[in-house]
Formats: sequence, C-alpha cells, structure tokens
Amino acid sequence: MAIKIARRGAGRARLCAIIAYQKAAQDHAMYADHVMLNDGVRLERFRAALRARVRPGDVVLDAGTGSGVLAVMAAQAGAARVYAVEKRGIVNLARSVARANGCEDRIEFLRGDFLSLRLPERVDGAVCELLGYAGLAEGITRAMPRIIERHLKSGAWFIPRALRTFAAAVRHPALHERLMLSCASCCGVDLSPALHEITQNYWVESLAGADIVCGPAPVFEVNWAAPPPCPPVNEPARMRVTRADTVHGFGVWFEADLAPGVRLDTAPDAPLTSWRQVFFPLPDPLSVRQGDELLFSLTPLPMAEGDLFHWRTVLVRDGRTLFESAHSNALTSKNMDAFEEPGIR
Amino acid sequence: MAIKIARRGAGRARLCAIIAYQKAAQDHAMYADHVMLNDGVRLERFRAALRARVRPGDVVLDAGTGSGVLAVMAAQAGAARVYAVEKRGIVNLARSVARANGCEDRIEFLRGDFLSLRLPERVDGAVCELLGYAGLAEGITRAMPRIIERHLKSGAWFIPRALRTFAAAVRHPALHERLMLSCASCCGVDLSPALHEITQNYWVESLAGADIVCGPAPVFEVNWAAPPPCPPVNEPARMRVTRADTVHGFGVWFEADLAPGVRLDTAPDAPLTSWRQVFFPLPDPLSVRQGDELLFSLTPLPMAEGDLFHWRTVLVRDGRTLFESAHSNALTSKNMDAFEEPGIR
Repeated sequence: MAIKIARRGAGRARLCAIIAYQKAAQDHAMYADHVMLNDGVRLERFRAALRARVRPGDVVLDAGTGSGVLAVMAAQAGAARVYAVEKRGIVNLARSVARANGCEDRIEFLRGDFLSLRLPERVDGAVCELLGYAGLAEGITRAMPRIIERHLKSGAWFIPRALRTFAAAVRHPALHERLMLSCASCCGVDLSPALHEITQNYWVESLAGADIVCGPAPVFEVNWAAPPPCPPVNEPARMRVTRADTVHGFGVWFEADLAPGVRLDTAPDAPLTSWRQVFFPLPDPLSVRQGDELLFSLTPLPMAEGDLFHWRTVLVRDGRTLFESAHSNALTSKNMDAFEEPGIR
Repeated sequence: MAIKIARRGAGRARLCAIIAYQKAAQDHAMYADHVMLNDGVRLERFRAALRARVRPGDVVLDAGTGSGVLAVMAAQAGAARVYAVEKRGIVNLARSVARANGCEDRIEFLRGDFLSLRLPERVDGAVCELLGYAGLAEGITRAMPRIIERHLKSGAWFIPRALRTFAAAVRHPALHERLMLSCASCCGVDLSPALHEITQNYWVESLAGADIVCGPAPVFEVNWAAPPPCPPVNEPARMRVTRADTVHGFGVWFEADLAPGVRLDTAPDAPLTSWRQVFFPLPDPLSVRQGDELLFSLTPLPMAEGDLFHWRTVLVRDGRTLFESAHSNALTSKNMDAFEEPGIR
C-alpha cells in the first residue's frame, strides 16, 4: 500500500483526511464534553446571558447540566438555588465542579430527565443548552416548550429565547471529494452503496463565507419568547443564484438569541465554535446558472433526540424543476436499528 | 468574546484546537464506518491477508462485518461461502455492498452477535477486524479465542494471528496543553475536576517518532496461532531514559500479524491509519533524567466491549520510586453509568 500511495501521489494527502474523521470514531463521551468545555465562545456567550438574566435570589433550572459549568455560572451570577438536572453519569463530575467552585450548597443536582421529572418548585428562570448541530440536533425544539410549561413560573426568563437556522448553497470540491471515499477505488471493492449512504448524512465541517454560492436564507425559526401560540416556522430556504457556479451541497448553521443583546452566532465567518457548520452533500456536483432558484428544506423528525432530519433540495430554472433530491438520515445504517427488530435473518 | 480572544493572542489558535475534538462530538456511526472505508492502509493489509489465506472453496466467517468490505474481499479471494455476522443495522448496507460487487450469492449475512450465535457449520477460516484503539479497545482479545473455539474447523486459518501493543514515554507540550482545557481560565469557573477526568481517559492522537522520549516497549502480547495454552502476556512496559527530558504522557499503538508476511503496523512513523496512536496524559509534565526507569502498565478490564482499561505509570530513580500514578477510564463520567443505577438522587 505504501508503494501504491506513493504512485498515486495525492494518496498521502488523502490519507491525512482520515484524521478529520478519526475523532468521530471515538466512542468517548468525555470528548464531547471536552469539546464544549474548550469552546470559549460558547462559555462566554452563556455566561453573558446568565449575567444579564439572573437576579439575586432567583431559583434557576439548568436543564441538561452536563459538566455543571452553566449551573456554576448561574450561582456565580447570584442565583439562590440552582436545580441542575442531568441524566448521564457526568452528573458526578458536575457535583465535583460545583464543589471546586464553592457553590455546592446552592446547586441541587438531580439525576434524571428534565422532561419528565418533577421539581420541588417552579423556577424564576431556566437555561438549556441542548443546541445541537444545525441548532436542532439535540432536541431543544422539543425541550424548550416543555421546560416553559412544566417548570417555569409565569413571566420567568429562559435561555435561549429564540433560534434561527440558516441554509446556503456551497461550492466545496475538496470537501465533496473527501466525503465521497477517495480510497474507494484502491481496494478493489465497489463501495457505491456506501457513497449513497454518505449523502443520507450530515457532516460537521468548517465552512467559509467564500464557499457560499448563494444564500444564506432561513430554513427554521422559532421564538419561544413571543406571545403564544408561536409555532416554529419551517419553510424551504429559497436562494437565487447570481452567477454560474457549481454546488456540492448545502451548509447549515444557527444563531440563538440567548438574552436581550446576547446572541450566539455559528455562521461560517463568525468566531469559531464547537458547532462549526453542518454540510449536507449532494450526490453529484450541480451546475447552476445566474437566475436559477435553489430550495433547501430541513425537517426535524419527531423522534429520537432530535438528530433525525428529512431534507430536500430543488433546482428551478425558468420555472421548471431541473433537479430534485430527497434525503433522510432516519434510514441510514446508524438509525436503521430504530426501525428494525434485531435478530438473525 | 471576539475581543477577549484577540487580546489573549493565542486564543484563536487555541480555538482551532476545538476542531480536533469536534468530530468526536458526533454521535454519528456512519463517521466511524467512513473512517474505516477511507483507510486505504487498513483495507489493503486485510485484502493482502485474505488473498494469502483464502483457498478456493473455503467457507469463511467475517466476524463483525460492518459495511461488508472484508466479506466481499473474502469472496473475491475465492471463498465458496462467507458467513458475515453483524449486530448493527449497518448489515443492511453490507448487503447492498455485496450486491454491488456481484457476490451476494456467496455471502450469507447474519444479524446478531458472533460470540453467541450458532453457524450452520464450522468454517475453514475467519477474519475479525475488532481491532480498536491500542489494538485492544474493541474486544478482540475476548473475541478471537471464542471464534477459534466456537466456529473454526481444526487447523483453520484466522486473521489476525497475533497482536502486540507497545508503549512509549512521550514529550508533547502542545498536546498536553490542548488537552488540559486551555480555555478553562477564560470562563471564570474552576474546572479542575474536569482536568482530573481528562487524565482518566485515553485520547486518539497522531504522534511522531520524534515525540518519543524512551521506548517503545511491549505492554501486551498475544499469539493466538501458538499451540495452546497461550495466555496473553500483559506486563509493564519498562523503558530506560537516555537523556534528561520532560514526559507529558505515554503513547500506545499496536501491530497485528494478519497472515504470514502480512503485518498491520500502527506505530507513529508507519503509514497513517485510522487508528493513529493513543495518548495517556500525565496530570503534570514529569521531569526525567538519564538512567531513570519508566514503567507503564495497561490492563484491559474484563467488561464492556473492551475499551475499559486500568493503567499505571511509575518513575524509578536509583532504585527508588519517585512518582507513581494509577488511572482508570472505568470511573469517568462516560462509564459511571455502568456502576450506578440511574435515578434521582
């Protein structure tokens, strides 16, 4: 293989692309928490929001406290009591973090699911950082209305208040080539079924503003702070092409209004966060012309933790649909287990 | 935050380190399979081993077939029949891969656990690619004797035949600093309990031969092809320091003998694979002198899928133990669930 790689020339460089995927192969929860603890933008934005919101004496819910950092920040911001709820074993680390910061007497850790457990009282405010990829992949749209209804006093504050997810058509030949299994041809096995599966997944990547062909346009918006009822707005992003170009997929990111004047922005050229951007690859690069309209819809499926999506892309030229594709990660090998009884064929 | 980062100078660069962890936050099984499909070294080595081993007409077991590539390679190498066993939903992708390669009539896919299921017959040979990080983290040491005992004819071949895991003391200040939460100081929260937890985990990294202070030395060896009984050899790696230096942790990797003359080597300067190397960080950098002896032991714990370890480091100078530390990822937040009943405190 070493020889083959040398002959192929670009082989070594391609192998380096493995690194970009390697971490993902880690089944190591601490990695995920490490990512978030190492994301200074995330920490600072949530800290600013808590400082803006917590009034001295407030009783606060930290829904899904993880390593406990936001619960500590709420206590530091003046909360009299924080209910920090977490269903994973990391709640034990969170207790240690509270102790190290001298606020274990003001944080009550509860092991369980904040969607179903009963707090001893309704609270003055809540923070919930279930913001996953594309803003939607950790189920915040399911969680936030439940938190408001189940745990908050009337008029209580909550973080985040609103969420907007954007989509843009992206030109990125290197990324597309890397995803499409550049090694597939060197092992003598036809991997085209796996290539299909790749386009039924979203991929966390770092995109740049310069990669954008057209857009961004909103594809999902919800404002929990608006007077009810305020259903989410979930309509296709519509983008007009302004120059002939090639589209390899769609980039998606979000911005969350955490508190008045405090926004978390994960757009391509905003300060880098652990969310980066997500990329939904097209099976084949798509040639577009000036005046074309591109549509991208992203529908969270009401199951699992929120990371299942249906998405659709449409290219319209002169009023005619030239290209259309529908995708869903609910039917990839990862998620097939949800639809099948395990057992021997 | 953008301003703060600019003031801190190195902040932006540090934030870039987030990327190295980001992929891990992905709970996306396709990523892991994509990694492996994109690892040309892995594919070529296993293909060479199968070509060396499969005789025309052989009945073969692919234990844990994943995306089905090795089962297809076994069929291409001349197997009359391949039993491809997989417990995850990806077996559906594997069936498609077999179909695309025109060998679906020679591969029988079985959904289940090859440790417990019963095959219709004993087989002439088996391939099992449960080689996880450090060679040990996917449970091959538990699987291989069971495969040999349960599924193979007497005298059958199997891949791999032997496994050796090595450890070396490593100097890597940048890696150590990155792992130790460089952002911890910018959020006003004392994260020292999380720092402790980081040293109770292993981290997948790319190390270079030049990072090695002393070693490598074997820390785990097993040869399934030797006449029984052949228990694994699991003794501390012993390394003599040849120059004064600083040790930030221990690097660990493996080599597997796949077939006579076919070896998979994941050492630091070998061709890059998806396994890279793993790094076990020390809590604090350790100063060593010429003549010191370093010991590193790595004990797989007999539970889970094989990714739980106990490890110990010792520094001996002039016959006296100067430093000693014991670690285990069985007690990190990821794995605490195995030891606790979930429920509300």
